[in-house]
Amino acid sequence: MRRGGAQVNMADVARAAGVSTSTVSRALRGQPGVSAATRERIVSIAAGLSYVVSPEASALARRSTNRVGVVVPNIATWFYSTILAGIEGRLRAADRDLLIYHVDGPTDRQQFFEQLPARRKVDAVIVVALPVTEEQAQRLELMGVHVVVAGGRLGPYPNVMIDDVEVGRLAVHHLAALGHERIGMIRSRDHEGVSWPADQDRARGFRLGLEQAGLEVHEELVVTEKWGVQGGRDGMRRLLARDPRPTAVFAFSDEMALGALHRLRTAGVTVPDEMSVISVDDHPMAELHDLTTIRQAVQEQGAAAARITLDLLDGRVPEHGAVSMPTELVVRATTGPVRRPAGAGTR
Amino acid sequence: MRRGGAQVNMADVARAAGVSTSTVSRALRGQPGVSAATRERIVSIAAGLSYVVSPEASALARRSTNRVGVVVPNIATWFYSTILAGIEGRLRAADRDLLIYHVDGPTDRQQFFEQLPARRKVDAVIVVALPVTEEQAQRLELMGVHVVVAGGRLGPYPNVMIDDVEVGRLAVHHLAALGHERIGMIRSRDHEGVSWPADQDRARGFRLGLEQAGLEVHEELVVTEKWGVQGGRDGMRRLLARDPRPTAVFAFSDEMALGALHRLRTAGVTVPDEMSVISVDDHPMAELHDLTTIRQAVQEQGAAAARITLDLLDGRVPEHGAVSMPTELVVRATTGPVRRPAGAGTR
Repeated sequence: MRRGGAQVNMADVARAAGVSTSTVSRALRGQPGVSAATRERIVSIAAGLSYVVSPEASALARRSTNRVGVVVPNIATWFYSTILAGIEGRLRAADRDLLIYHVDGPTDRQQFFEQLPARRKVDAVIVVALPVTEEQAQRLELMGVHVVVAGGRLGPYPNVMIDDVEVGRLAVHHLAALGHERIGMIRSRDHEGVSWPADQDRARGFRLGLEQAGLEVHEELVVTEKWGVQGGRDGMRRLLARDPRPTAVFAFSDEMALGALHRLRTAGVTVPDEMSVISVDDHPMAELHDLTTIRQAVQEQGAAAARITLDLLDGRVPEHGAVSMPTELVVRATTGPVRRPAGAGTR
Repeated sequence: MRRGGAQVNMADVARAAGVSTSTVSRALRGQPGVSAATRERIVSIAAGLSYVVSPEASALARRSTNRVGVVVPNIATWFYSTILAGIEGRLRAADRDLLIYHVDGPTDRQQFFEQLPARRKVDAVIVVALPVTEEQAQRLELMGVHVVVAGGRLGPYPNVMIDDVEVGRLAVHHLAALGHERIGMIRSRDHEGVSWPADQDRARGFRLGLEQAGLEVHEELVVTEKWGVQGGRDGMRRLLARDPRPTAVFAFSDEMALGALHRLRTAGVTVPDEMSVISVDDHPMAELHDLTTIRQAVQEQGAAAARITLDLLDGRVPEHGAVSMPTELVVRATTGPVRRPAGAGTR
């Protein structure tokens, strides 16, 4: 703790009172050479500066900021802005303020975990689904505040997420039940080439689903592309070039699936007759494209993480350290029974 | 300024020092009955509590919080989350923190402007495109901080926005140049039935464009629906029921246009042969649907508003009090030359 700051103290009071710092010092210490009226004024200004100026001051007094920091990778995409809305609504209802730390990409992440800019500015931190190294996770301890994780998992901290392994398994189960055997997956990586935990878990679930259905994993049918619509398009282009190509594809997310569907339209491949597509989210655009998907309640994940945070701040132990939110298969028109592609009858 | 807070002051120092408040009072006022050592300790604790504890404290000293509040109606939709990303990036680069005030709907708005919860917690407020009454706008003065408006206009405050009248005019100009004469518009209202300034301005531009092209305004071809994909779908359903129906439609935003396109697909109306559609945004999904649109740079609007805010905080007068950001017509496949609908030749 920087004790040298006491100098600033005197200087600020002196400036506000229009006197020298030595006068402030003498007045506050009760030394002679200051009139009673001036001393009264200086004490009043010192008190005013420190405690009355703003809500800040009373927060300071009880060592609480009444703020929660949210560390989020990309607020301009649907998943993150929606989870943020869930966190915000819940914190606002409890009269807590929300400070945003937008941490996009590994350089930003490294800098955030090195400098911990939220330190001493917040009572708690909610980290939203970031790929974080073990070493970085440990540095969060240095913040000395509660840490809660939303939409992911991180070290020993309470968290809220969906079961991504189950999501992958369920997607393949649905496709296998429709008779599909050559099932592909479009995985995702960020713009630095990193596969995030959700992607890894969904890919694990994908393999598990194939195994449970007694199907083979065709490695050439698993492609990884940059997250987003264009990545979905690129992934489907690669899968269409496989020979034989898959009859069904599990895409990491709805936004990637929409790109994949666009590529199929462009290529003249009919859905679901020649290709089934399933993904994850139930993004607002999913219904518009009749997309079969595994719905996750994103806003609710944010709200649940905020609830845990508020419990911790109020000194209550949350009921569950790890909350797994339900998911739901929403069958629409992009998945259907397998039909051997034309010309494949000889295989 | 609540002077009564000085009581809190004494009590906190007393608690920390393990003495009575009257001892604190005597010590700070230099009255007798307190040993030199105790006085020294109390003064040191008072100084420590007020200025040294945290970055908070030094911010307090210079009467600055180092935070900017952002008042935003709906962070879970593309426009707002994108403008927020633009604001955040710019503030972060200048080492300012961002506090979010999510103000959704008239009740929330009324409460926000009555209570001004951001008061004394921030150095400046950026208001993002809200429908605000004159009375509410005036209350912002009470905050005693800089106010900047992003994506809209509000009272006398510096603002950044696009020229929505020009956007409407340009859309109609494009359609008229393709020979369309019966041109409809799908306007938007919020979930409380309120038409927002951007909608009003685009509708004004729509009328202006028709006038400039020497075309008639067909009032029955202007429909207003709830903002969003479903609203676009509903609006197009109503327009398809008109007899004769329009040959081209200008939708308030891309998300509404995507709903309208979905309705057209469902109804078996070919685009653009039987119906042209144009809208505003260049949303990430627009290209996927080959949607002709008027692109606006949303993230840049946020960044520009943040830049003005930082200028004001640094005591610089921003170069422009009102920044109009450029827009750009992006012609894709949903608009084409007029073709009389089948059976309309007898008119």
